[in-house]
Amino acid sequence: MASEKPILYGYFRSSCSWRVRIGEEKKEKEFLVAVISGLFPQFSAEFKAVNPMQQVPALKIDGITLSQSLAIIHYLEDTHPNPRLLPQDPKKRAQVRMIADHIVSGIQPLQNLSVLKQMGEKKMEWAQTCIASGFQALEQILQHTAGHYCVGDEVSMADLCLVPQVFNAERFKVDMGPYPTITRINKALLELEAFQVSHPSRQPDTPAELRA
Amino acid sequence: MASEKPILYGYFRSSCSWRVRIGEEKKEKEFLVAVISGLFPQFSAEFKAVNPMQQVPALKIDGITLSQSLAIIHYLEDTHPNPRLLPQDPKKRAQVRMIADHIVSGIQPLQNLSVLKQMGEKKMEWAQTCIASGFQALEQILQHTAGHYCVGDEVSMADLCLVPQVFNAERFKVDMGPYPTITRINKALLELEAFQVSHPSRQPDTPAELRA
Repeated sequence: MASEKPILYGYFRSSCSWRVRIGEEKKEKEFLVAVISGLFPQFSAEFKAVNPMQQVPALKIDGITLSQSLAIIHYLEDTHPNPRLLPQDPKKRAQVRMIADHIVSGIQPLQNLSVLKQMGEKKMEWAQTCIASGFQALEQILQHTAGHYCVGDEVSMADLCLVPQVFNAERFKVDMGPYPTITRINKALLELEAFQVSHPSRQPDTPAELRA
Repeated sequence: MASEKPILYGYFRSSCSWRVRIGEEKKEKEFLVAVISGLFPQFSAEFKAVNPMQQVPALKIDGITLSQSLAIIHYLEDTHPNPRLLPQDPKKRAQVRMIADHIVSGIQPLQNLSVLKQMGEKKMEWAQTCIASGFQALEQILQHTAGHYCVGDEVSMADLCLVPQVFNAERFKVDMGPYPTITRINKALLELEAFQVSHPSRQPDTPAELRA
């Protein structure tokens, strides 16, 4: 059976979709892109059949459909080990996963659309508080683990999560002054091609006024 | 250097701590237990030095301190592969991680204490809505992946996340009627010793009135 090209269901501004796009670039995989609006009411019945959670990203690959960005990135890592996104040393690998989970479970869900809608007028303040509180802890963690990037000098899953989260922080006008390590690593990563071509400003569904 | 016994910082009712306790039992590791109250204002400066995020669980092990339950469980898997908590087949492994992340990133953070405090009078309704919406999707996913347990017939990381989340659902009085697959798997898992001895009703800090 000829293998079909995987389909990535995503949305240009979704930070979780961006994580997967960076993984796609790093692994030199090529996905077809199916654009799904990030606004829940516009989700189609068709997409609900693809991903019952109706969230992006979702990846149709090798006959299965996966959701959850880190599960998708782990699958790419398991099936295409090079270049690796997890260090060989188990302790460093644990630190990579700790930082990734800290962002993916500890920060991003709290500033997600569904929560912000409930916050009404306090929306902006809530998002800023959640991100700042997460970044304070992350800054301390990175002071122990970072080299050029989040853990040592190799790009890892942690970096795939960091850059989209800093992008969100900037959208919510979080003061990045107290986070010099996060800021330095983010800048270094944005110089790499994989982070540039996957950037929200360069996707097929990016509106003209937001294009880089 | 003699290896010291790992220390698990946890709290009896924390669902994230429970995930790690089940992992500890499955891997036949023995952790010292450091009890940390689940209420933020009571967190000590000492614990902030252990885990800058001031969240449980945290594990001091092999000279490093890890936070984030799934990162901790992955570290146990990497360093003590048997009995395994991830299937050998990459597709099944991806399904395990998808289900685990769905709970850990997609459900639990939305009904976490910090969010509920913001919801005021709507607290209970909000928690129920988040869990129900997550369980609707999970029920559909499990219909494709489940055997005796979440993915096939082996206990996996997904199961370590499922049981504590159902426990939370019961605390928030979520109607479990629409989720027969979740209910069946949860019941089967609660018959296993690793899930029983790690149960919130049997921890050193469980109040007398909640003890099993």
